[in-house]
Amino acid sequence: MVVELISVGTELLLGNIINTNTQYLAEKCALLGLSMFHQVTVGDNRERLSEAFETALKRSDVVILTGGLGPTEDDLTKEVCAEVMGLSLMEDAHTKNRIKEYFKNSIYKEIPDNNWKQALVPQGAAVLDNDNGTAPGLIIEKDGKAAILLPGPPNELKPLFKDQVFPYLQKRQPEVIRSQMIKICGHGESQVENKLLDLIDGQSNPTIATYAKTAEVHLRVTAKASSEEEAKSLLKPVVKEIKNRFGNDVYTTKEEETLEMAVVRLLKKYELTVTTAESCTGGLIAGRLVNVPGASEVFREGFVTYSNKAKRKHLDVSKGTLKKYGAVSEQTAKEMAIGGVFAADSDVCIAVTGIAGPDSDGDKPVGLVYMACYMKDKVSVEEYHFKGNREKIREQSVVKALDLLRRSILKNYH
Amino acid sequence: MVVELISVGTELLLGNIINTNTQYLAEKCALLGLSMFHQVTVGDNRERLSEAFETALKRSDVVILTGGLGPTEDDLTKEVCAEVMGLSLMEDAHTKNRIKEYFKNSIYKEIPDNNWKQALVPQGAAVLDNDNGTAPGLIIEKDGKAAILLPGPPNELKPLFKDQVFPYLQKRQPEVIRSQMIKICGHGESQVENKLLDLIDGQSNPTIATYAKTAEVHLRVTAKASSEEEAKSLLKPVVKEIKNRFGNDVYTTKEEETLEMAVVRLLKKYELTVTTAESCTGGLIAGRLVNVPGASEVFREGFVTYSNKAKRKHLDVSKGTLKKYGAVSEQTAKEMAIGGVFAADSDVCIAVTGIAGPDSDGDKPVGLVYMACYMKDKVSVEEYHFKGNREKIREQSVVKALDLLRRSILKNYH
Repeated sequence: MVVELISVGTELLLGNIINTNTQYLAEKCALLGLSMFHQVTVGDNRERLSEAFETALKRSDVVILTGGLGPTEDDLTKEVCAEVMGLSLMEDAHTKNRIKEYFKNSIYKEIPDNNWKQALVPQGAAVLDNDNGTAPGLIIEKDGKAAILLPGPPNELKPLFKDQVFPYLQKRQPEVIRSQMIKICGHGESQVENKLLDLIDGQSNPTIATYAKTAEVHLRVTAKASSEEEAKSLLKPVVKEIKNRFGNDVYTTKEEETLEMAVVRLLKKYELTVTTAESCTGGLIAGRLVNVPGASEVFREGFVTYSNKAKRKHLDVSKGTLKKYGAVSEQTAKEMAIGGVFAADSDVCIAVTGIAGPDSDGDKPVGLVYMACYMKDKVSVEEYHFKGNREKIREQSVVKALDLLRRSILKNYH
Repeated sequence: MVVELISVGTELLLGNIINTNTQYLAEKCALLGLSMFHQVTVGDNRERLSEAFETALKRSDVVILTGGLGPTEDDLTKEVCAEVMGLSLMEDAHTKNRIKEYFKNSIYKEIPDNNWKQALVPQGAAVLDNDNGTAPGLIIEKDGKAAILLPGPPNELKPLFKDQVFPYLQKRQPEVIRSQMIKICGHGESQVENKLLDLIDGQSNPTIATYAKTAEVHLRVTAKASSEEEAKSLLKPVVKEIKNRFGNDVYTTKEEETLEMAVVRLLKKYELTVTTAESCTGGLIAGRLVNVPGASEVFREGFVTYSNKAKRKHLDVSKGTLKKYGAVSEQTAKEMAIGGVFAADSDVCIAVTGIAGPDSDGDKPVGLVYMACYMKDKVSVEEYHFKGNREKIREQSVVKALDLLRRSILKNYH
């Protein structure tokens, strides 16, 4: 079954807002195993909306339209859909009552005249009650096709979709689709694909898709089947093979688990506390760790030591090291990591020092970053040469540092 | 002149990522006064991409395609555009060299074979060097139409667009469009609109557009004219009036200046050093300050004191205060700010403590955040009740803390 999304709103064409509805709906449709080939955005314009909707009805089974259901003259979605599908609009008594009720509890005392327009629905349409606004959602079926109209504000759209549209679509979808996520750190996207070329080339069911993230690659393996068991048994050998090929480079196979969550999970598992000693990343590694609810169990304090003086004062980096090798050096990174463990009385410390730019530091180039991890009397250190602007260099540093922390723990416990 | 956007990528159709490129490009095109009527997303599929591109070429003057320029077999944008426009692909020696150079400095030692594909360009195309990746941008002109191909990763797309595509589009646009940005902190979007209702209602040239950001509102005032001078004289009185209405709530009128840049600019101006004392924000305020090149002049060290013990040890928060009022309290925030100034020997300290959730802390609700700023023997403290999830609460806290820092400096020097 093929679904198409049409977002309606001139504010999207002007770039006033980011279209988060489309991502939300696309993800949910993928989860249902529905195929999506087109996402289209048009403005509040009768002719272009009409054309987009006609095209979508021809090539797709279900068309989900978002936005343009408001009370103003600009709002045309319902009118245009009814016209294209050859249906007239009639007043829906139930919806009229809901609008009355809604305004009773509203800060606006009077119901503006144009709000009654929202009580008109195409004949035969199913009305989806909207608890967070006046515009109802609508499902219109005709000739085996369905148009689903949803209000644009995400806080109205999401509950309407989740509670009323998702179950409707699930009923219409005969196939079972299951997928498995595999998240990898330590390879670029093309390297990952090269390592999987034989599997990707031969794929039809399950399929393997790669997604490049900052210093990470995510893989999604997806199977279509007639039953839950069949889907699982299609996935299992492929997932196992990929995990074998990448070993410890795989940091999680859980859909919702981020790198920092995986790190915090390992720290908790081995009952370790961690501290951070950051120079060029300036607190972002600590910030990532604190993303994880319950991080306080393993992370109690961190140091942002941007100046040499701060590195000496808080982390006991020696004056001689800073003078001889400079702040951006393997030696300084090591001393920061060791000093962090003692300063915070923690089990592990991850330390980063580097040149994020835009200016280089004497003969040391922009993008040169050293990171060190100290635990169990042993320090591991890595040297990177990152590309990109200041922001990108720092982002990559954060990911690689979290990954070094993860690998150091694994090395000690496996 | 009509511009159309085509986003290419199955990951968009699957909802794996939010399409932020479209918002970025749409906003910039609006800034140039270009008309946009369609935004389309298709997957990595030859037939559908080809069809979408043909349709776009018919109804628009300029088609901007993003994504699908990578090295993998999935990446088809360049091939399809060349085919539809009837152009052959040829190897570009300059780009081939750039790829070699790129990999020389990369963490990956070998150049995967498939990367060479990125050196092929359609005949006659203008090659836009990409400093942040291997895929170059391309401008292909034919029969009065133009196709602009940009890589999908935002950190590659944005600098390419800003430095090379924006000036190109500006040249093609006959009218003079000038706009002025005004960035405001301290009001919600509807509050800002209410304060400007008379200006917005009466607007035609210049126009005023509002953009809601996390705890900020950006305003863009845009004038169309036949000359630079005319545009400027249209903008001037409106910008002046808006600045009068919002006073110190305006933190910048510079397009590229972020809140942290404005803060660092003020710190430098008054020769102040700052330190951070962070609990729930866990290093993100320091991280934002370090975003600014040259931040080392004003920021030398920061503290992430997530546990009570760390607050006592590094910031000298008293045991009695923590016991009597708790870690999330006005009193603790104040002591953190005062302690930070002494611990770091800085002029100013911004401190934040709060409950980011998901769990509340006894009778204190999720979203309760205290922030304090200490400078010149005086401490200012603010209490917030933020809505949203953990991430959203922390994001808002960071912005409000940077703004409190900014306002505290202004209060002392104006």
